[in-house]
Parts: sequence; C-alpha cells; structure tokens
Amino acid sequence: MDPDAESPEKNEGLRRGAPDPETNGYFVQQTMYRIKNPKDSLKFYSDVLGMRLLKKLDFPDMKFSLYFLGYVTQEEISSAADKDPTERTQWTFGQKATIELTHNWDTENDSRFQGHHNGNSEPRGFGHIGITVDDTYKACKRFENLNVTFVKKPDEGKMKGIAFIKDPDGYWIEIFDRENITNVAKAAAAKPRGKG
Amino acid sequence: MDPDAESPEKNEGLRRGAPDPETNGYFVQQTMYRIKNPKDSLKFYSDVLGMRLLKKLDFPDMKFSLYFLGYVTQEEISSAADKDPTERTQWTFGQKATIELTHNWDTENDSRFQGHHNGNSEPRGFGHIGITVDDTYKACKRFENLNVTFVKKPDEGKMKGIAFIKDPDGYWIEIFDRENITNVAKAAAAKPRGKG
Repeated sequence: MDPDAESPEKNEGLRRGAPDPETNGYFVQQTMYRIKNPKDSLKFYSDVLGMRLLKKLDFPDMKFSLYFLGYVTQEEISSAADKDPTERTQWTFGQKATIELTHNWDTENDSRFQGHHNGNSEPRGFGHIGITVDDTYKACKRFENLNVTFVKKPDEGKMKGIAFIKDPDGYWIEIFDRENITNVAKAAAAKPRGKG
Repeated sequence: MDPDAESPEKNEGLRRGAPDPETNGYFVQQTMYRIKNPKDSLKFYSDVLGMRLLKKLDFPDMKFSLYFLGYVTQEEISSAADKDPTERTQWTFGQKATIELTHNWDTENDSRFQGHHNGNSEPRGFGHIGITVDDTYKACKRFENLNVTFVKKPDEGKMKGIAFIKDPDGYWIEIFDRENITNVAKAAAAKPRGKG
C-alpha cells in the first residue's frame, strides 16, 4: 500500500493515530492582528468582505480595544444581540474562525505612527488570512468596483484563479474558490517541465 | 433604546444591516505563517495541540510546501483519506479555521537562516492565533508536562485564566476557555480604579 501524502510515514513528526483525547473540543477561534484605524477596518471587513462585528471589548486601563469579526448568519447575530454583554462575550469565544483586530488607542491620530508590518517583507513570518468565496473572478470583479487594493489579481502571475487583496493596514487576504484553487494546486504540483 | 456596543451607531464605519448578499457563503478558511522545520511544527500541532494534517501540497518549481492543519473529527479525516488527492484538496479548502504552514525548503538546514518574525516585537503586526480549549488550567498543566514554552502562564500577569504559548518558530498561541476569558474581559473592561 502506498501511503498518502498526509500519512505519518511521509511526514516526520506527525502523530500516528488519533489526537490525544485531552485535546478533544479544541478549535481555532481567532487570528489576531493590530490595526491603525477601526473606522477603516470595520468598513472594509463588514462592507467589502461581509463579516459581522461579533463583539467589541474595551480595555481602558491598557488603552486598547478588540474587535472580533466573523461570518455568522442573520439568525445567529440576532440571537447574539439579545444577549447581555457577558453572554455575548462567551458566545463570541465559542465561534470558530474569527478575526480579532487590536486597536491601540490613538494610533490613527499619531502622525509619528509608522503603520503595521504585514509579515511579507523582511522580517517575514505571518503571511495572510484566506477566505473561501463562491467564485474568485466574480468576487474580485466586485472588489475592483469597490476600489480594493490588489496584491495579485486572479489572472496575474502563475497561479490563475487565486487573488490577494490588502486590508486598510496592508495585511494580505487570499481570495479563492474551491474549484480554482484545486486546479492551481494540481498544476503547481506537477513535475517541473524540462527537468525530467 | 441604548444601542449595544456592537451597533453601527457606536462603531463608525460598520455596515448597517445585513452584509452584501454577494458575500454569502464566504468563510475564513486559513491563517498562513512560515515555518522553519516541518518535523518540529507537525509534532507540535498534532501531538501538543491535537490538530490533524488535512493536506500537504508541494510546489517543486518554487521549492516550497504547504501544510494545512485543523480540527476535524475521526470520521471526517477517515473519509478524507479515501479521497483522491484532488478531491482531498477541494475538501481541505472547504474547511473553516485551518492553519497553513509554509515551508520554504531547506531553511531547516541553512545555518544562516535567521528564523521567522512573530509580529510581537518591532515591527509589530500579526499577534497570534487563539485556541478555545475546554479548561485553560487543565490544558496548560498538560502543556507544561510536554515542555511547551510559555509566554504567559494562566496565573501570571493581570489576566488570570488565559495563557500564551509558543510554537517551534516562536509564534504565539493564545489558550483560553469560554468561562475564564469572559471573566477576564469583564474585569478588564471595568472602569479603572481611582479615575472616578
């Protein structure tokens, strides 16, 4: 039997068998990055990307606020709006795949503020978040109409059918649909031409 | 009526009403960051954090590999293992809240490689991913036994009941449960003492 590319036999370090039962119920709840101006970010993530504001938390002692945004249904957000603030916090931390935008107060009014580092130039680290959409080309057409900044349009470069846009702080967001990105992965993984 | 803290009235820039229907079906599929050594990262994310390897993609032309990890059930991963590689890719990009680890080949053998930037020292930007667990204290006790590096143990600092650990590249991972983090949020949001 030829083990698949995701097997422990082909991936040194990977655990064999099921995860430790102690980790049952764990999930990735958030990805946090810092923003300069909540007004710009809220507009971008709600208007352009269609997320909802799940929870805002203010920390006056430490002079920052957190904005949790994510994709939930109308029914879910209506039910969240009926909760008291504590219940709403608890509900938010039960949601998968949110973004947590950290706003250190007054960066938007500080002329000396240099902006945030998106991780894609030196020193590199973080790359991007990625959003699955229904149709990359349709979504990107709409983003163009909304004057979104592109790092890569879907027909630019080698990887046709996937795009990268920038949020107001310059963080990268990958945009893809399941069909196009699967084709990209297939093509890119094919043996390089001319190397036998 | 006093609008809640998440209302458009209290959050300039936030869209009023439902998201644009054009964004229906969008979801946050991935958070990407770069890793030095897949062996160390796979061990950490599968053994310590209980994630599964959903998909590995190799890009020999560009000399990098992508590892998608996330929380899925035994049933889901068994069903994924029955798929052909293309179907498995398509399945992976249909999963919410995965992490995408990018390995540029041979960084682990390059003595001049300086490591990755975690975003929490200058130049700052990305902060962390956050994982909801069943019980912060129980989870952290186990992480201690597994010799995980802590940025902050749950009883250190002001925010009791939440912790930060480091992955093998030094990226921060916040660890919390819904009850403890809600208490932290409540306490921190209370009016600062001595300021009226």
